[in-house]
Amino acid sequence: MTANTANSPKARLNICITCRASAGASDTTGNSETDATRHRDGKRLYDALSHEMATRTDPASFDIVPVECLSNCKSGCSVALSAAGKWGYVYGNLTIEDHAADILKLAEAYANAETGLVAWRERPETVRRNVIARIPPIGN
Amino acid sequence: MTANTANSPKARLNICITCRASAGASDTTGNSETDATRHRDGKRLYDALSHEMATRTDPASFDIVPVECLSNCKSGCSVALSAAGKWGYVYGNLTIEDHAADILKLAEAYANAETGLVAWRERPETVRRNVIARIPPIGN
Repeated sequence: MTANTANSPKARLNICITCRASAGASDTTGNSETDATRHRDGKRLYDALSHEMATRTDPASFDIVPVECLSNCKSGCSVALSAAGKWGYVYGNLTIEDHAADILKLAEAYANAETGLVAWRERPETVRRNVIARIPPIGN
Repeated sequence: MTANTANSPKARLNICITCRASAGASDTTGNSETDATRHRDGKRLYDALSHEMATRTDPASFDIVPVECLSNCKSGCSVALSAAGKWGYVYGNLTIEDHAADILKLAEAYANAETGLVAWRERPETVRRNVIARIPPIGN
């Protein structure tokens, strides 16, 4: 479920573990390496989603991967969806309280979408306006 | 130089041709399909960079690729750097006047960087603060 496997064929839900939530964040410099021991909202989000996935009995169609900095520091917490041959997406301004369950639903829909394009109406409503940017698939 | 080749091994400078520049843009809805015939700053940026590349005599280390919407509509113009096995980057708030030459320098540095990570001091100064987000390489 929660894995950082090399060359995984699965889609990935990359979660920035160095993010702070944008609302009320005291550090907006974007420097994620100055104080690694401080409270990190991104790490909390990663832990919460990993825990939720671990409680599921059905096999997940995507892996959850911790990453350090998605360069979206002004709009944390941030996650990135990626998979070979698919558009990659960055979502931001996420919180455990408002978005955790729907991030997993979105990742599931992404994993099942051939090119990574999840139709607007099929994106969970709480996260669909949180897209920060996307990147075309390699070799499309 | 300017190519939309399938399965290119080269790095890519993807340029959003449906972008409008963020400053003074009249449409911030993010809907890039409602009025495809209107003036597009992104298309102008693509044309300018393609023209510049075509005048060069040395072979480029990256391809310029037009794309429709990088989902960064509030902070256009936008480009995305991508390559197999590298971090992908989205840059925004770009204009021909301020950034065209340095976008090409950045793309060159990116193409030459093994993992796509260009050191801060090696990023052209005019564009280094324009990063919107990045996505981890597939299979890292």
